[in-house]
Amino acid sequence: MHRILDEAPLCHVGYVIDGNPYVTPTLHWRVGDRVYWHGSSASRFLRKALGTQVCITCSFMDGYVLSRSAFFHSARYRSAMVFGKAQMVEGDDHKMEALHDFIENLFPGRWDSLRPMQPQELKATTILYVDIEEATAKVREGFPNDPDDAQHPVWAGAIPIVQKTVEPVNAPDLIPGLEVPDYVAALVRSGGLRTPPRAE
Amino acid sequence: MHRILDEAPLCHVGYVIDGNPYVTPTLHWRVGDRVYWHGSSASRFLRKALGTQVCITCSFMDGYVLSRSAFFHSARYRSAMVFGKAQMVEGDDHKMEALHDFIENLFPGRWDSLRPMQPQELKATTILYVDIEEATAKVREGFPNDPDDAQHPVWAGAIPIVQKTVEPVNAPDLIPGLEVPDYVAALVRSGGLRTPPRAE
Repeated sequence: MHRILDEAPLCHVGYVIDGNPYVTPTLHWRVGDRVYWHGSSASRFLRKALGTQVCITCSFMDGYVLSRSAFFHSARYRSAMVFGKAQMVEGDDHKMEALHDFIENLFPGRWDSLRPMQPQELKATTILYVDIEEATAKVREGFPNDPDDAQHPVWAGAIPIVQKTVEPVNAPDLIPGLEVPDYVAALVRSGGLRTPPRAE
Repeated sequence: MHRILDEAPLCHVGYVIDGNPYVTPTLHWRVGDRVYWHGSSASRFLRKALGTQVCITCSFMDGYVLSRSAFFHSARYRSAMVFGKAQMVEGDDHKMEALHDFIENLFPGRWDSLRPMQPQELKATTILYVDIEEATAKVREGFPNDPDDAQHPVWAGAIPIVQKTVEPVNAPDLIPGLEVPDYVAALVRSGGLRTPPRAE
């Protein structure tokens, strides 16, 4: 479950506002059994979600599984759903620490090279988290499971889907001569979507 | 908005059950302004969702955007959120038609080659839909937007993420000699995640 959360570049957060569901895609990060996300302090979603039960789902669509009947068609996928009460990171020091973790979790070593966070930027940023109370993970790999239809003469198999980072592109206004940092090159080389998390 | 719904291989459906949010990844398909999803007739989610307001969100994470400060880090993404009341496809003929659309939407020409759907399979399948009442789409492309920090000496730019179908793999129990159908080869060749939808 942690692996799916760590590898997925984004999650979908489900909120209930005035009795109705909202599903918002957002970047997230994990420290232990705590999952964080953030946004503008002006965000209606974040303000309304605070103190309520939320559901955070991370999913990978890894491919189509084609069987010999419509019924047994399926997908290769990995998904994790976590449940908990949305809480807010309070205090400038704790907020700064959480944002540090967010950046370093994705790009180890980048934080200290950045233009420092300004007080008004910190104020404009709201960080929420859940302590995971309950979670489920599901993984479906492989091929169609329709042995009774194996002699039906239609192609069956899987069409994998891959998702990966590719060559970085310089900002148009990048200072000439600045090289792509090692942590970016390493992420692209890994063929993954995130830097593998550090050991805990 | 239709294009994001059509290209995304899966969606995340948000339900409210007993006041709490649930976000479930599932395959979906669209016909006009109606978005369908399906599952087992035994599914608690589908039974509880029927008649309630749901939120269906499709998202692509297209890359990381790295600015010179933590604050302006961002993502390239496309997302569509649609809202509506979950309704059920009733009647065997309508259910069959909806499943036909699902398969043909992904794999044009496959339906007629399949082992026909059995009555008990149709019974075991519940198909829900929403008529889109309200929707929003968001797209973020490009590079960091932090001109005031352009002289800060740290690399800035984007790390694109690509997601695509790759070479199909035969089922281990495939009848020897059966070729990969044209619609599968075309999907993989397109480098996309779905067959482009037919003109309406």
